[in-house]
Amino acid sequence: MNRRDFLVSSAIVGASSISKGANLTSGSSASPRVAPQSNLIAPGVWRLRFGIPEEKTPVSTRSYPIAAQGWDSLPAVASHPVDVTASLNARGCHVEIPLAPGETVYGFGLQLYSFLQRGKKKILRVNADPRSDSGDTHAPVPFYVTNQGYGIYIDTARYATFNCGNAHRKGDKAESAQGKQSGGSLPIDVLPAAYRSIEMDKPSRVFIEIPGVRGIDVYVFGGPTMRHAVQRYNLFSGGGVLPPRWGLGVWYRAKSDYTQDDVLKLASEFRKEEIPCDVIGLEPGWQTHSYPCTYVWNGTFPNPKEMISQLATSHYRVNLWEHAFTDRQSPIHEPLRSDSGDYLVWNGLVPDFLSPRARKIFADFHEQEHLAIGVSGYKLDECDNSDYTGGWSFPELSFFPSGVDGEQMHSLFGKRYADAIQEAFKARGQRTYGLIRSFHALAAPYPFVLYSDLYDHRCFIRALANSGFSGLLWTPEVRDASNPEELIRRLQSVVFSPMALINAWYIRNPPWKQVKLEENNEGRLDANWEDIEATCRKVLQLRMRFIPYLQAAFARYFQEGIPPIRALVLDSPDDTETWSIDDQFLVGEDLLVAPVFAGERQRKVYLPAGRWFDFWTEQRFDGKQSVTVDAPLERIPLFVKSGSILPLARVSAHTDDSMSWKLEARVYGEGAASTDLYEEDGALNPKMNRVTLMWSAVGKSGSVKRADNRLSPQYEVELWRLVSEHRQSDQESS
Amino acid sequence: MNRRDFLVSSAIVGASSISKGANLTSGSSASPRVAPQSNLIAPGVWRLRFGIPEEKTPVSTRSYPIAAQGWDSLPAVASHPVDVTASLNARGCHVEIPLAPGETVYGFGLQLYSFLQRGKKKILRVNADPRSDSGDTHAPVPFYVTNQGYGIYIDTARYATFNCGNAHRKGDKAESAQGKQSGGSLPIDVLPAAYRSIEMDKPSRVFIEIPGVRGIDVYVFGGPTMRHAVQRYNLFSGGGVLPPRWGLGVWYRAKSDYTQDDVLKLASEFRKEEIPCDVIGLEPGWQTHSYPCTYVWNGTFPNPKEMISQLATSHYRVNLWEHAFTDRQSPIHEPLRSDSGDYLVWNGLVPDFLSPRARKIFADFHEQEHLAIGVSGYKLDECDNSDYTGGWSFPELSFFPSGVDGEQMHSLFGKRYADAIQEAFKARGQRTYGLIRSFHALAAPYPFVLYSDLYDHRCFIRALANSGFSGLLWTPEVRDASNPEELIRRLQSVVFSPMALINAWYIRNPPWKQVKLEENNEGRLDANWEDIEATCRKVLQLRMRFIPYLQAAFARYFQEGIPPIRALVLDSPDDTETWSIDDQFLVGEDLLVAPVFAGERQRKVYLPAGRWFDFWTEQRFDGKQSVTVDAPLERIPLFVKSGSILPLARVSAHTDDSMSWKLEARVYGEGAASTDLYEEDGALNPKMNRVTLMWSAVGKSGSVKRADNRLSPQYEVELWRLVSEHRQSDQESS
Repeated sequence: MNRRDFLVSSAIVGASSISKGANLTSGSSASPRVAPQSNLIAPGVWRLRFGIPEEKTPVSTRSYPIAAQGWDSLPAVASHPVDVTASLNARGCHVEIPLAPGETVYGFGLQLYSFLQRGKKKILRVNADPRSDSGDTHAPVPFYVTNQGYGIYIDTARYATFNCGNAHRKGDKAESAQGKQSGGSLPIDVLPAAYRSIEMDKPSRVFIEIPGVRGIDVYVFGGPTMRHAVQRYNLFSGGGVLPPRWGLGVWYRAKSDYTQDDVLKLASEFRKEEIPCDVIGLEPGWQTHSYPCTYVWNGTFPNPKEMISQLATSHYRVNLWEHAFTDRQSPIHEPLRSDSGDYLVWNGLVPDFLSPRARKIFADFHEQEHLAIGVSGYKLDECDNSDYTGGWSFPELSFFPSGVDGEQMHSLFGKRYADAIQEAFKARGQRTYGLIRSFHALAAPYPFVLYSDLYDHRCFIRALANSGFSGLLWTPEVRDASNPEELIRRLQSVVFSPMALINAWYIRNPPWKQVKLEENNEGRLDANWEDIEATCRKVLQLRMRFIPYLQAAFARYFQEGIPPIRALVLDSPDDTETWSIDDQFLVGEDLLVAPVFAGERQRKVYLPAGRWFDFWTEQRFDGKQSVTVDAPLERIPLFVKSGSILPLARVSAHTDDSMSWKLEARVYGEGAASTDLYEEDGALNPKMNRVTLMWSAVGKSGSVKRADNRLSPQYEVELWRLVSEHRQSDQESS
Repeated sequence: MNRRDFLVSSAIVGASSISKGANLTSGSSASPRVAPQSNLIAPGVWRLRFGIPEEKTPVSTRSYPIAAQGWDSLPAVASHPVDVTASLNARGCHVEIPLAPGETVYGFGLQLYSFLQRGKKKILRVNADPRSDSGDTHAPVPFYVTNQGYGIYIDTARYATFNCGNAHRKGDKAESAQGKQSGGSLPIDVLPAAYRSIEMDKPSRVFIEIPGVRGIDVYVFGGPTMRHAVQRYNLFSGGGVLPPRWGLGVWYRAKSDYTQDDVLKLASEFRKEEIPCDVIGLEPGWQTHSYPCTYVWNGTFPNPKEMISQLATSHYRVNLWEHAFTDRQSPIHEPLRSDSGDYLVWNGLVPDFLSPRARKIFADFHEQEHLAIGVSGYKLDECDNSDYTGGWSFPELSFFPSGVDGEQMHSLFGKRYADAIQEAFKARGQRTYGLIRSFHALAAPYPFVLYSDLYDHRCFIRALANSGFSGLLWTPEVRDASNPEELIRRLQSVVFSPMALINAWYIRNPPWKQVKLEENNEGRLDANWEDIEATCRKVLQLRMRFIPYLQAAFARYFQEGIPPIRALVLDSPDDTETWSIDDQFLVGEDLLVAPVFAGERQRKVYLPAGRWFDFWTEQRFDGKQSVTVDAPLERIPLFVKSGSILPLARVSAHTDDSMSWKLEARVYGEGAASTDLYEEDGALNPKMNRVTLMWSAVGKSGSVKRADNRLSPQYEVELWRLVSEHRQSDQESS
């Protein structure tokens, strides 16, 4: 077996020591193991180079350098924590990494259908329409982390296959019985039965296949915890993004055929009706042609500059929908022609965004036609791949002038497309925030949030939990709903996501006025629309109250690589109960969100170790248990960690509103507590001022400390309020 | 673009003429075209060899030779009908074939989710659990046919990708505008709008990518019609299978935990209750261990030999479930160990069925333990692949001693597994008929019918229509149903399939006694079970009446390669209405079946050119129109071609029953007509006697002629009955 395998040289990076290790198979022949000397890339980040990697990979084509800051916040890691071996054969490169009993696997990007990946096979293909748990996703990321406290990144733009403990080699069983692979930090007998069914109680391996390559760089990210490993991955990617503060407000995308007047009318209605909104998005109708795109304003927007400036006076930003496939009527069609792929999409050119020239043509036109008149950002649609929805997008067998084929380009397309757009914004020293439908590895620094046309609410919540493992941001955008209840439940979860987005691209009126499509477009509003709108308004106002808290969570993403939204297991890797929880998530350091789905009026919530306060009732719960809480329609279950300070802003119409800086500081629990907020200047490389809110348990009083007084202060605590354990105990006993 | 391409030599087969053709792309660089001299393999079948094909392919590992007979029945084809070009690049081999306006594409094996393949991208992977229209299927076949009257077979065991007119190359449009690709036998303006939406009105191309190979054999099958091309493909595959006559009777698979006594009791009940049945299948419980398999009789079957012999006296055959993954307790585990793959499945060995030694070990044990005591055949389960249902099966990165990897083995596994079984039957000069869950190219001669755990009724019917394009047999097996109506509708369609199979592997009582699982297994029968059983009995009896007709259809499959069950478009390629019909199908030459789905009491049926009689009402309809017919629960819409003779047997309990040869010859329409039936000796290479039923329009009388009198006559026409057009006209006007 493996007769096609041959020795892999690790000679390229650093000094190499090739040692022929033990046979991995007990058969008559086996792959020679290679133990390359590792190359330390950053603190606790090692690169292992096997053979000769491909020229074009996520790392080799990266535009963000490794983060300069943030590494100090991480504990030191002495040596890389896991044994990685590799071999080459006729199929490509084969990488093996052991799994200990009780070792869990997470990651692989925006996985919609599964969470705990041990026992699964994943083929990491870009796909706009993933319908099963195959690995296909808008944003596959060849990176995983385990509860043993390390991460593995395979630097490839190929559709790699990860067999995560589901494949068993002949002879391996005997080997493990001899105890060679024993270990694992968790006693096997604590494993719930579901984990035993995927043989998680036994040692196993991750087998990774990267097709067609003659070598691979494997990056190992140390911990000591899984969360630290994710932080290192995010810092390695360039650090997490810090969105402009307005990006954290409410977004509303208007119907595709809205005219300039329609947009202005909507904007004015929102202010009148006190619907918070920071960004209005325009859908395809703003262009003269959209499939493929011209990027040229349609006649229905006779004076976009004036519209944008008028909107700006009401504190609205404008975001434009587009995709990259360029129509022959576009002024950039001819310039792009020689820097585009050899296949068309919808008869439009596919720009080769790996080419600096293509990016420049694209960026310059966007600067001149949109940014110059005040456009704040874009929604970059259709940049994933589609195998089955009509077979659009370029085939894998395409070739591009930069030297990549269609498969590689699909993996790289989202980021390089975002790069083209970013170049325009960077040139004017401006930050943006927007949407994109495809990403891949190393996406953490990008100010773009993923979204999907799929619309299952549970998948959407699972994606929130999963996104934090892989340096991705994701919005479970709200489009329509089968009834007002579902609308409200979806709205309640989107406001605890990186982008509070209502995407009304096919309905004339906001969904709270009528969830039914036809009626909505005919202007026949729901009989109860005012009640529904009132509930939705409160949900959106809740988002606005959390802006300071969310912004602080993003600041930690930016500074330390801590994902602002993440699964419970990332903070509680040793708690077996958290291993499978994909319908709750953490926001920042102190908040646990447990979304409710239409039809439910209560739900079970697992609370990890510590003590937790129900945000709504202020009831206190001990952690390490499941509790069942009521969830009346107007409330999404939220839990705040005891010992924290939650800074809640006053309700505001938009993030420029001065109310957005006026805080109620809620102190949870009777001990001393502190929390950090951030003021910043909004610049491309922002100057940031850490604002520490501190509570003295003794004096029962709060204080505010600013780290830097060069920036003018913005936050003001109007009210300190202690949410007391004692008081809650009283309530409990009453 | 395509800078990685290089010239492909076609030097291996025959004399080659390498010509550098016109650039296919209008870009700055392009693939050089190669026009290999073709090699005539069989009448109207050409092989084009590009580069150096892989060693292990469906053709190179075939066990059935090209059929010796049947070619005479086909019209001569002077030259191969389509321009095939190919190039090699770093990704593998790239094949291009033009598509004319109005050219339709069908095939690719057991596609469950689509029928008309133009406009689609298909990746032909083996998958036990295909959930979307990706190309994944239990039985992918890299063969397609078009309504231009030719077929293309790509001889590879790789997961090839077919872009069927969905991908558009830069520059191709301009080229087509110049008329270089004009043509197509159908005027564009006749195309229904749905076809225009996939740009079928424009010239296009099929782009095929075979990953990782350095060359490929492309086989071109001439027509002149699409049906002829399919015949040629089937004859090239070795000719269609002729099942033993008992295989066409009713099959019933008993619950997995049935004991020997349970089986005997069931068999006796069926005879008592007049439920027709020829074959009883045993599910996993017959073995000492089944995941993985030992192939050894369990103690619950204390005397299998006696049981089988007892069943034989009641004219039952016994079929055994198994899969190939071999348990360490199996006597063949140790012998197979060195001839197995380097990965395990469910901890069982994966036999390398490409190794003659592995096949012999397997065949010998089956002969000795099963065939020798009378087992008639097998259900070969789990031999496909699973990416997502728990990640079982061997990974693509496996290697086998015969030199193939896991990807190739997945494509080849079904057939080579069937070969191992066939070797045992051939050694004893015996024909078999059974089930298998995976096939690939060249499967027509195999006496195995495909099935699936998926259970959507519409997908199951679509698979019947699709199977005929690719030399596959398929049964839409009946398991359970949500209500008796669905049970009856499913039963009505399975009886017009290659295997009339009820698979009751998880219910103790036949489904007509209780469709509800739990109640069934607790013995709580439906209050109306006798009525339901009566209806189901009639449906099964209908199958028995059609045995002579079905057997004749299979004889034509065997002799001429005409698929016994096939889509309407195969017989009416010029009728645009038939192009998309995937919920009706033809059985033999004269019968059109239009299944009804639960909830329907009438359905629209499209009748192709000619005149048709409703089997039930005997109403006559002109063809080339859609008609809406009533479909009361006890009837599946059936239409008989005017000008044909339908030979219906008397109702029988099993195919050994003498009633099965006593015929009513129904003559449809008032002209002269004839039909052929077949008597055969049941031998491995059967002697066959053609029995022609002839109707004289003048004498209004029928006669029977036997081509060969060496076999003893079996068929007897008891009744000739004219179904008159005149009579129907009367009815119509009444």
